[in-house]
Amino acid sequence: MTPVQSAGGRPPWLQRADPEGIVMSARVRLARNVAGTAFPGWAGEAESRRLCRRLLPVLAALPPFAGGAVWRLDEMEALDRQRLRERHLISAELAGKGAGSALLVAADESLSVMVNEEDHLRIQAMAPGRDLLPLWRAADALDTAVGERIAYAVSPRLGYLTACPSNVGTGLRASVMLHLPGLRMAGEAGPVVKGLDKLGLAVRGLLGEGTDALGNMYQISNQATLGATERDLIGRLDELVGAVIAHERHARLRLLETQPVRVRDRVARALALLTQARVMRSEEALDLLSALRLGVALGWLSGLTGDQLHDFVLGVQPAHLQQEAGAPLTPDERDERRADWLRRSLAAVEWV
Amino acid sequence: MTPVQSAGGRPPWLQRADPEGIVMSARVRLARNVAGTAFPGWAGEAESRRLCRRLLPVLAALPPFAGGAVWRLDEMEALDRQRLRERHLISAELAGKGAGSALLVAADESLSVMVNEEDHLRIQAMAPGRDLLPLWRAADALDTAVGERIAYAVSPRLGYLTACPSNVGTGLRASVMLHLPGLRMAGEAGPVVKGLDKLGLAVRGLLGEGTDALGNMYQISNQATLGATERDLIGRLDELVGAVIAHERHARLRLLETQPVRVRDRVARALALLTQARVMRSEEALDLLSALRLGVALGWLSGLTGDQLHDFVLGVQPAHLQQEAGAPLTPDERDERRADWLRRSLAAVEWV
Repeated sequence: MTPVQSAGGRPPWLQRADPEGIVMSARVRLARNVAGTAFPGWAGEAESRRLCRRLLPVLAALPPFAGGAVWRLDEMEALDRQRLRERHLISAELAGKGAGSALLVAADESLSVMVNEEDHLRIQAMAPGRDLLPLWRAADALDTAVGERIAYAVSPRLGYLTACPSNVGTGLRASVMLHLPGLRMAGEAGPVVKGLDKLGLAVRGLLGEGTDALGNMYQISNQATLGATERDLIGRLDELVGAVIAHERHARLRLLETQPVRVRDRVARALALLTQARVMRSEEALDLLSALRLGVALGWLSGLTGDQLHDFVLGVQPAHLQQEAGAPLTPDERDERRADWLRRSLAAVEWV
Repeated sequence: MTPVQSAGGRPPWLQRADPEGIVMSARVRLARNVAGTAFPGWAGEAESRRLCRRLLPVLAALPPFAGGAVWRLDEMEALDRQRLRERHLISAELAGKGAGSALLVAADESLSVMVNEEDHLRIQAMAPGRDLLPLWRAADALDTAVGERIAYAVSPRLGYLTACPSNVGTGLRASVMLHLPGLRMAGEAGPVVKGLDKLGLAVRGLLGEGTDALGNMYQISNQATLGATERDLIGRLDELVGAVIAHERHARLRLLETQPVRVRDRVARALALLTQARVMRSEEALDLLSALRLGVALGWLSGLTGDQLHDFVLGVQPAHLQQEAGAPLTPDERDERRADWLRRSLAAVEWV
């Protein structure tokens, strides 16, 4: 297996862009631990290394990882960690780990396993859209295959045991990434996030836990995993995600009805800056691209598709930008290169 | 005399734009009070009205005000007060006054007198450039003419008596308005302002005391008026203004040398937003116009002159915008109209 070098390309979970520009992608992950071994946070480096040596051959031999890649954290450069993080393949926690931690990625990046992150195993499945059941089935199939080869830590009463109590039970976290520029512009993103929190859902930013809603992208996921079946958890999340999407549609309609010029202004400014600026930070780029995505969804802009916007969302981020440049760049160099790339790429975009 | 209706036009002090885009305009004002009458702050309304009735015919009969205008504050609408403030003809203090206060303006607006502002008389002369001596001579001539007809409050030891001790002596305040985008961009505007403060100069914003340096425009003026001749005060101010101009030139050169792309980015973003935004507040417009003025001074932009930029500086301000519209507008309507006007007016501007 060789490392995935597809950083320039669009991973499967960033394909088939939603014409409304609301639904981005979905993810299901299962937290699992190996029976008779301390959780990663309690295990020493030697024990983690031992477990990793034991797990990697087992995992790598499974069909989904044929032609895929294994990344050992102690062999990875900072830029690769950041790049895989931008591709949602590793968490901030795993990116901070060293010897004894690893990542397995299927060739198409739709399935992956983090080894010795917070738990021994974090099985992940990602796809475009918001259809969680097929993702759960894919993760579940991989989970079953691993479980036939490795004895998991399970409590007959509680279910799967995990390092953090919030994951005990199914060990399942399902999430949907939504693009919510309407709610943000209407000042309703905050209240909606609070409401979801009260209903037991977590809302996070583009790059997961502890990150901002860059580019108005929000990850909505279940919190509790205990005392419910996977289907129940997924069904409940799906229902609330549907409600948030309805909120976003409503916010857009109301904005267009009551403040059409303000919405047009937002899109016009975004296009103006993206096609004229000489220097641009990634946060600003993501924010402006969000306005462009809204403009495309509203049918206002030609010469640009949702899938191209997906490419930009990855491409403007620091590690992808440097990968494309073929060399590490200082922040100033990145800001300049990012602006140049966007200016060139968006030159043909026009108002309809 | 009829009210000045020239609000759409460019007053003399906003003409002959500096090719460097640094020096905007200069002003000299003399504070004078009438002997045997309480300062405006201590006088009751009846006394102020009486004094105003006595002063207006005397002033209006002087040659500079032939064909000019008299504004009585109690007869002025809010929009006119704001418009004359944007034209630097009345201060915030006078704009807040009512019966007993007035303004006389010469037809070309280069000379004016505020009656019952902080002092009984504030004689003002304005012109483009930074040449203070001719302005002082013009104000002095008017002062002499008034003094021949009205007995001023004078102390043989202190000089002219004024409501605020800081004006006692010559009663002279001279100021120069400078456009300092280089110092601002280099983060040196703050230190320069502090330095001037230590040297006894006051630095204020576009609209005078207590206002921000909108559009990177700074009014630099003398503080003390006691114990020095008018020529000394003006000479000292002129010397320090020259030093600030040299600082600004130096800041621009250094920015162009060390961060050329950042400067270009600033100008490019300004032009992009001014020609594409659908909604714009006056503060933002002034800020972006400052970048455009820099772009013109650097020879980067064609299809735009410094004098046109002067027009925009007045035209984007709320009262002038509404005067041009011929009707009072809500803030939202103003922001939309301002953006439309700028977009149309700047459509032909291009990179050289």
